[in-house]
Amino acid sequence: MSLPRLRIKKREQQRLRDGHLWVYSNEIETPVTPLKAIAGNLVHLEDYRGQFIATASFNAQSLICARVLSPEEITTLNQAFFSQKIQAALSLRETMFQQPYYRLVFGEGDFLPGIVIDRFNDILVVQISTQAIEQAKPELVAALQEIFGQSTKILFKNDGKGRHIEQLPEYTEHVGPAFDEIQLVENGVQFIAPVDGQKTGWFFDHRDGRQWLNGRVNGKSVLDVFSYIGGWGIQAAKHGASQVTCVDASQKAIDQIGINAKLNGLDNVQTVCADAFDYLKAELKTQDSHRYDVIVLDPPALIQKRRDFEQGRQAYFVLNEHALNRINDGGIFISASCSLHMTSEELLKIVQQVARRQNKQVQLIHQARPAADHPRLLSMPEADYLKCFMFKVTSI
Amino acid sequence: MSLPRLRIKKREQQRLRDGHLWVYSNEIETPVTPLKAIAGNLVHLEDYRGQFIATASFNAQSLICARVLSPEEITTLNQAFFSQKIQAALSLRETMFQQPYYRLVFGEGDFLPGIVIDRFNDILVVQISTQAIEQAKPELVAALQEIFGQSTKILFKNDGKGRHIEQLPEYTEHVGPAFDEIQLVENGVQFIAPVDGQKTGWFFDHRDGRQWLNGRVNGKSVLDVFSYIGGWGIQAAKHGASQVTCVDASQKAIDQIGINAKLNGLDNVQTVCADAFDYLKAELKTQDSHRYDVIVLDPPALIQKRRDFEQGRQAYFVLNEHALNRINDGGIFISASCSLHMTSEELLKIVQQVARRQNKQVQLIHQARPAADHPRLLSMPEADYLKCFMFKVTSI
Repeated sequence: MSLPRLRIKKREQQRLRDGHLWVYSNEIETPVTPLKAIAGNLVHLEDYRGQFIATASFNAQSLICARVLSPEEITTLNQAFFSQKIQAALSLRETMFQQPYYRLVFGEGDFLPGIVIDRFNDILVVQISTQAIEQAKPELVAALQEIFGQSTKILFKNDGKGRHIEQLPEYTEHVGPAFDEIQLVENGVQFIAPVDGQKTGWFFDHRDGRQWLNGRVNGKSVLDVFSYIGGWGIQAAKHGASQVTCVDASQKAIDQIGINAKLNGLDNVQTVCADAFDYLKAELKTQDSHRYDVIVLDPPALIQKRRDFEQGRQAYFVLNEHALNRINDGGIFISASCSLHMTSEELLKIVQQVARRQNKQVQLIHQARPAADHPRLLSMPEADYLKCFMFKVTSI
Repeated sequence: MSLPRLRIKKREQQRLRDGHLWVYSNEIETPVTPLKAIAGNLVHLEDYRGQFIATASFNAQSLICARVLSPEEITTLNQAFFSQKIQAALSLRETMFQQPYYRLVFGEGDFLPGIVIDRFNDILVVQISTQAIEQAKPELVAALQEIFGQSTKILFKNDGKGRHIEQLPEYTEHVGPAFDEIQLVENGVQFIAPVDGQKTGWFFDHRDGRQWLNGRVNGKSVLDVFSYIGGWGIQAAKHGASQVTCVDASQKAIDQIGINAKLNGLDNVQTVCADAFDYLKAELKTQDSHRYDVIVLDPPALIQKRRDFEQGRQAYFVLNEHALNRINDGGIFISASCSLHMTSEELLKIVQQVARRQNKQVQLIHQARPAADHPRLLSMPEADYLKCFMFKVTSI
């Protein structure tokens, strides 16, 4: 059995040769291999001479029409394919982490475009984003059960916004016993996350940033803006913060913070269910009634598409301005962005600008990154989405 | 008493307004304020209308002719000036570090261009790089003694290569009791450094990188190239590495590794006094006789000036190529550069290129930075000199 061939334009081959895993639809030599003529979700990529390059998932409707899955000329995504890739990913995590709470598979970073898997001990939450992987779901499940045991609880949380780009239906599905919450430990602090929360239920990518803050928060007041279920705030409280305020627009997230505070025996975590913009603006009117030693500003991606950059930049600007204004002299400001289109340079510029407007000095004292459970390929700068900067703030 | 005025060209003012601390000599409105007419090492910077901007150190001979020391219109660098700045720097360190071993003053990052101070408990090693600070040395010493006590041991290690640019003599000088070695603790590991070693005697900027490795080195073989006195290697051995090899061209550094190994009760640290290039090349000839689970490649700045970029890049390329070739499958490669002119992007590209040549996959799993004792001003990207990347290396 052979797969359809997809020929790359001569001048577009270098990126693949350099290890990039994506092919854009305008990079295809369509006179030779018309996109519309291709049936199925797997293809063999070939160079301008017709020489095999790699096996890739395929979707004619997507701007990124092909994603490399293997340098080998394979014809199907069988259990062995998934097993080998996931074993390699697991081996990296087991070297790097003491406890089984991490991103097990980070798509392209683990040479598995189309799959994200977060591990919470015996629970695996899986997100699939391509038709090719969706179709091979039985083989993926078999591989996971082979590696983690038949009793592993798997949740397909296939409800991401990106699914419709691949014409995939949104759904969630349990394999094995169903459950409605996830337990995890991060930096020594326990959490319970609802399975119907954001993304897989947890954001492992801020683990190291939170750990940094945990060691510097003793006796300090902390404001956690866009707190979700309290990843930053609860950990800060557990590590000795004098008082923590968590702000989130979701009542469900706020309720979960109460549960997590109780789980950790904390009585100094205050919650506010509010839009972060409204909250920070309202706070400004109350004339210094609420300043904090530490403010964590960790908004969701406010720039989804490049064309939304200016509007999104303005949103980051307003948030950073209001947050910075609420920090006690000598305090710590943590400003994060998970928008790919908000570069490090741009976010630093925003903080610099708002600091100048407020006559404050900011010193960059740390920069956190996703840990080794978010490996990056050097060929794919697109995966470097998360910025997280720590500043010391001083009035001039 | 008033200071000479130095007028900035209208179009060159914005960088200063944005918080940058340097003025280049070609940014001066010399028809109004000729450089040669200025006597002394301190000036008041003014804008094109003659309005005061800042007080700065001055040197007509230097490409960077002025460095901002204060937004206030001061006329002398007295004890109070130094005391206030150093107290602010100390306050940041005391919040951030448990033990008194850190860079206490990081020049521009602490708003003190011309001064670097490393603290080793009751020892302060000071490096001065401008005439203005050199001239105010008595006031600086008085401020340090006021803050740290009269019995504080101060060593001026004014032997850096940069001193001749400012027409400053090279010398070392003890204030208080003399000493010939420095004791320190980093990441729980003890070290003794000779005072006549490199820079201040220690490189605090790799503290966090070493800590990361310490947690991942148990049972592994480690090669530490350009080891100096064993900052990476000794710590790795203390944290359970099965075997450590340190390579450095300085016999004095090699001898000190022996002392530090003994100090920590280690008998698995091997030392090689050799040029790193020669050593790595020779190793290559011995056909797989020496591979390592972890290789740390932390060379000195191989690109001192921009015009040396191509030659320096080639040196980094060769080192990275040889090092990568000596890593066991699944091993960890740490590649660092302290050359300002070697950007992150460029170093990552080098690693990507050598990996491709060797048919290896490299996943970027961590990036370490200098910690909060190396604060950075957002306005001064020049201070972002240190790159330190951690990779997982897999054969394809």
